Amino acid sequence: MAGSTYGNIFKITTWGESHGKALGVVIDGCPAGLELSEEDIQRYLDRRKPGTSTVTTSRKEEDAVEILSGVFEGRTTGTPISLMVRNTSQISRDYSEIASCYRPGHADYTFDEKYGFRDYRGGGRSSGRETVGRVAAGAIACKILEQLGVTVCAYTRSIGPVEADMEKFDRAAILRTATAMPDEEADRLAVQYMEEVRHATDSSGGCMECRVEGLPAGIGDPVFEKLDANLAKAVMSVGAVKAVEIGDGCLVSRRRGSENNDAFRMANGKVRKATNHAGGILGGISDGDMIVVRAYVKPTASIFRTQQTVNQSGEEIDINIKGRHDPVIVPRAVVVMECMTALTVLDAMLLNLSARMDSIVRFYRSE
Amino acid sequence: MAGSTYGNIFKITTWGESHGKALGVVIDGCPAGLELSEEDIQRYLDRRKPGTSTVTTSRKEEDAVEILSGVFEGRTTGTPISLMVRNTSQISRDYSEIASCYRPGHADYTFDEKYGFRDYRGGGRSSGRETVGRVAAGAIACKILEQLGVTVCAYTRSIGPVEADMEKFDRAAILRTATAMPDEEADRLAVQYMEEVRHATDSSGGCMECRVEGLPAGIGDPVFEKLDANLAKAVMSVGAVKAVEIGDGCLVSRRRGSENNDAFRMANGKVRKATNHAGGILGGISDGDMIVVRAYVKPTASIFRTQQTVNQSGEEIDINIKGRHDPVIVPRAVVVMECMTALTVLDAMLLNLSARMDSIVRFYRSE
Amino acid sequence: MAGSTYGNIFKITTWGESHGKALGVVIDGCPAGLELSEEDIQRYLDRRKPGTSTVTTSRKEEDAVEILSGVFEGRTTGTPISLMVRNTSQISRDYSEIASCYRPGHADYTFDEKYGFRDYRGGGRSSGRETVGRVAAGAIACKILEQLGVTVCAYTRSIGPVEADMEKFDRAAILRTATAMPDEEADRLAVQYMEEVRHATDSSGGCMECRVEGLPAGIGDPVFEKLDANLAKAVMSVGAVKAVEIGDGCLVSRRRGSENNDAFRMANGKVRKATNHAGGILGGISDGDMIVVRAYVKPTASIFRTQQTVNQSGEEIDINIKGRHDPVIVPRAVVVMECMTALTVLDAMLLNLSARMDSIVRFYRSE
Amino acid sequence: MAGSTYGNIFKITTWGESHGKALGVVIDGCPAGLELSEEDIQRYLDRRKPGTSTVTTSRKEEDAVEILSGVFEGRTTGTPISLMVRNTSQISRDYSEIASCYRPGHADYTFDEKYGFRDYRGGGRSSGRETVGRVAAGAIACKILEQLGVTVCAYTRSIGPVEADMEKFDRAAILRTATAMPDEEADRLAVQYMEEVRHATDSSGGCMECRVEGLPAGIGDPVFEKLDANLAKAVMSVGAVKAVEIGDGCLVSRRRGSENNDAFRMANGKVRKATNHAGGILGGISDGDMIVVRAYVKPTASIFRTQQTVNQSGEEIDINIKGRHDPVIVPRAVVVMECMTALTVLDAMLLNLSARMDSIVRFYRSE
Repeated sequence: MAGSTYGNIFKITTWGESHGKALGVVIDGCPAGLELSEEDIQRYLDRRKPGTSTVTTSRKEEDAVEILSGVFEGRTTGTPISLMVRNTSQISRDYSEIASCYRPGHADYTFDEKYGFRDYRGGGRSSGRETVGRVAAGAIACKILEQLGVTVCAYTRSIGPVEADMEKFDRAAILRTATAMPDEEADRLAVQYMEEVRHATDSSGGCMECRVEGLPAGIGDPVFEKLDANLAKAVMSVGAVKAVEIGDGCLVSRRRGSENNDAFRMANGKVRKATNHAGGILGGISDGDMIVVRAYVKPTASIFRTQQTVNQSGEEIDINIKGRHDPVIVPRAVVVMECMTALTVLDAMLLNLSARMDSIVRFYRSE
Repeated sequence: MAGSTYGNIFKITTWGESHGKALGVVIDGCPAGLELSEEDIQRYLDRRKPGTSTVTTSRKEEDAVEILSGVFEGRTTGTPISLMVRNTSQISRDYSEIASCYRPGHADYTFDEKYGFRDYRGGGRSSGRETVGRVAAGAIACKILEQLGVTVCAYTRSIGPVEADMEKFDRAAILRTATAMPDEEADRLAVQYMEEVRHATDSSGGCMECRVEGLPAGIGDPVFEKLDANLAKAVMSVGAVKAVEIGDGCLVSRRRGSENNDAFRMANGKVRKATNHAGGILGGISDGDMIVVRAYVKPTASIFRTQQTVNQSGEEIDINIKGRHDPVIVPRAVVVMECMTALTVLDAMLLNLSARMDSIVRFYRSE
Repeated sequence: MAGSTYGNIFKITTWGESHGKALGVVIDGCPAGLELSEEDIQRYLDRRKPGTSTVTTSRKEEDAVEILSGVFEGRTTGTPISLMVRNTSQISRDYSEIASCYRPGHADYTFDEKYGFRDYRGGGRSSGRETVGRVAAGAIACKILEQLGVTVCAYTRSIGPVEADMEKFDRAAILRTATAMPDEEADRLAVQYMEEVRHATDSSGGCMECRVEGLPAGIGDPVFEKLDANLAKAVMSVGAVKAVEIGDGCLVSRRRGSENNDAFRMANGKVRKATNHAGGILGGISDGDMIVVRAYVKPTASIFRTQQTVNQSGEEIDINIKGRHDPVIVPRAVVVMECMTALTVLDAMLLNLSARMDSIVRFYRSE
Repeated sequence: MAGSTYGNIFKITTWGESHGKALGVVIDGCPAGLELSEEDIQRYLDRRKPGTSTVTTSRKEEDAVEILSGVFEGRTTGTPISLMVRNTSQISRDYSEIASCYRPGHADYTFDEKYGFRDYRGGGRSSGRETVGRVAAGAIACKILEQLGVTVCAYTRSIGPVEADMEKFDRAAILRTATAMPDEEADRLAVQYMEEVRHATDSSGGCMECRVEGLPAGIGDPVFEKLDANLAKAVMSVGAVKAVEIGDGCLVSRRRGSENNDAFRMANGKVRKATNHAGGILGGISDGDMIVVRAYVKPTASIFRTQQTVNQSGEEIDINIKGRHDPVIVPRAVVVMECMTALTVLDAMLLNLSARMDSIVRFYRSE
């Protein structure tokens, strides 16, 4: 209940602090018989790695994953999969300054209020490194989804004022560009913008987007477990996200029904919507169209200039944050959004297996 | 797991269809000893009622609540509270047309795909009437929160292009205005706008906002059960909501860290933020400041003009929706947002009781 | 979390007190497309009814069930099924005596300690009437299981010293005999024994047993969600049950491995055990054999003779319990055990749908 | 959902196979501020270790625990505690024989039926080594309970026909005797009995018991989350347990109410029961008296003589099991029972923090 478990059937539990011994995740409920290797997972973790560009930190993070259980002779056994990444490059330097004061925009103060004290080294559990476990688990979810014909793809939509042009959407560019933008021209402008931001000892916010394709209609549950509600939770749970949109999102509030309704049409013998303002979800259930989710991310809280704050003794002080930090979070958070989306969609698909009597009878009667 | 249960400690389960016999909710986990009467709940349900203005439907909905269990001699007993509202004014007219075709913007198609068939009368379970159970349970959550010093207040922020002026925020106006706006001038303009929309046989979207005041710092859990993540889910689970913002929301994506960070300051011996871009939540945990959540609502899908769609036989057809519908959902959804927020905040507060050893020892050792 | 919800996929929430307005249950997660009528449920509720024999109370309980939601045109829709039974014959007489004192063997004292006060009318939530909701929900679970080829059958194994002879097991006798024994000769002796017990103003304990047949191998999950662990919880949660056995139960503690191991053999091309000491479960997972569960029930706590107790003021007093009570709980609890077993087995079968990649791929790829 | 998570507030997730790289557990929801070291946990793991006597296996299991997260400067931080034990002495020998056949009394067949294949090395996830995670987590639960004034103590009640004499109950003997019996005389007889059993290449069942002292009245929830129901699940989930009793257990079925009811009396100004047939629980809620739980354990399935079974190809074959196995499970399972009981009781105590309005108001209003 304390917050580090996610999912109902495909259930993950993450653990670990920024500067602790290790970080990891236990996946319980992974179906048996999936071929799985450390490489499958490492590929996703590598997307979290800081690069060498100006848009990410210069810290080194190796993050080599180890499968500790749940895989036998190259296949998942149906029992818990434990994944671990040892912390190797977190040199615990002198944290005495931040130990006793509250960095603006960080969770130092709220953790202290909740728990009475905190692991202050590098943000502890509230560090972005916490997402290692999400990504390791999400890699497995993505692999399963692929076998079910579903692809999940996240990318950077904007950094500060620089927006990717969706008309020029180039999927291959996402993995190639420093910003994870699907538009190389925008990427260049964004990198330029970030150089300016860094020079100004500042940081920038941004926006990321995720698409789910190939998802059949009928996934998600009514009322509280709507697919969009769970996607909103999944994405908002990623540190620094302050807004989530489905489909046309905020824009719908200014529209009229006649503009916003998506007409149903037939295409190749299948029901399809003429437009997709809805972002692929109606009444909380997938409609067979592409799912579109957007997340708005605040600028990195750690900036290299003097800021006002208070310390644990209640004194107003100035603070100068040291260390190496991403000047914009989005490019490295894109894979986290992709993984949270995949975990959410997969769990909804597994829950959906029990939606109808006829398929349950078929499962048990034909065996 | 099928979606109609919400909450961990204060757990609610709603049930009922638009045109079924009744709608209701069971609340399990309500603390014992709360004074509770049907009037406490009725007051909230009445805010859901269609009014007589042009912004709501002309349908009559009485929605008289009955407490069936869990209250004895005027106080909650700690056992499940069952609340029921009989459906009285849902005259089941001829639904043969919508029975076999898919209304644009509605969940008809997705329910059919998921379950194989659906209760088509008035939208069945995907009707806005489903929120009766949420509001009945939320009324109790609000009453408990009041006793803990926490107030929750939702209102209409905008309807179509007409926005309330937050500088003129007038809490009393929320219950007085037809639009539930906290600004009477904007209300007048919005009503005018809606008359035009109705005349054009169309509908409008809008935006609603909710404030939580008096919440102590330390509420919410790290990682997946962040307070903002749960608020996002709670609010996105309300039908027609397509985007959720916390604090400054989408705006942060264009900001720099130096603009967006809230400095910590001391005020009356307490740690307080100089600004509240964060919307009262840092690292998923409340920081003692006002919580601000915003929800963007799509225009009512039911409009009184011919629309293109398909039927269950896969034929492209024209559809003309009949019945009485709210031309804008927001004014009646405001209380639903307030209730979902209250349920989420209360549950997080109850979970927080076990956060620290010292308070647990105090609880059990001093008895 | 407060205890009135059971199950993961097929999830039920019961509510109601002995002398409140009504009792009921909400079932969320019932698969869509099951034919269901009030008669299907009433049949099970009628088995809870007190009869006219000497082994049950002379109280009248009509317990007519009403389906309030989740069923449309005779079939389940996949949305919550709300079932209600109005309390009609609970005449609230003078409870002033038991209101302030603690009946031996009852939950009066523990409810007061937990909640600070209690609904003392007829035991409130701790009354045996609470099982109305379990049986109503269990009736649906049984109907689904039948369609999956699984039958669940509970009966009285013993009352006081009188034991049914399992060699003469007669299924039809269960519904025919006053004691719900599968052996008419034992039934006669038990009725005779109970007459003596009543005459002595006393009550008797007993034992009930439940068999599950037709369950395929592979149902149940390792470690904490073992099928036997969940059956133990399900059955122990029925009031007055003080012990649960699976298969040979307590006897195994005195055995040697060579006596207790069930050899595997082939029969009609299928793996079968030569004996069934295990009671159909190995490692927490069904083995395809008959599941056997046994529950030991204490004598009715309400007896018509003077007993020693204390009151809320901490005074030692004598108490004389009035009212009409079953002199032995078992005959009416048999259907409750059957229902709890059915709910547990069905939920495990629904969870099992996601155990293997190959069947998940088949489900989503062949649609 | 797949079975390796236990608890609601104090939630544990175990992982690992007998012959995998490691075994472990993640505890989420441990209150912050508890002093915790690896020694605290190691002490409990050491009680699982095979000894040098004739009653346990001659295998060596070092089982050194490592705390990977959740503890900072010697105290729990409120975030997930990850504990790991590397498998060091599990020499993976030739498993080709058991790989393809089903050992009687083991879960080989049921795992194959459920998952399609299994990790056959040493039983994989269904091995008794799985309890390493339970004990590591339980050690923390026990430490918290101690600080709340609650002690949990399990011991061997009987081995085969040899029973400990409860009149001579000697707590210190539990840790001293090879059998974990609280009676040295019975221990001697049991060791003698086990020598005979071993000589006969056989194994023996037994019975273990657990006492909880110092638990206040009011712990546990009505209906499905009764304290006894959860204890039954907790204990039955331990491999090889086939029956669970609370208080007088099976015996109550032959009793009369006048014999079985525990009269309430006053003692030192407190309500106390004159007897404790109930085993400390009334209506699923603790009554302030000692909780007594008993578990009946089957004889070790692995015996060193030829047994009949079938293989994966459906052929009837003879099997001769090799390896080193405990001839009786009970002495090493006693600490597992103690830990499962502690986890269950602690979770119920944490849930109970939100039972009453007055204490919640006090918590939030006095801060």
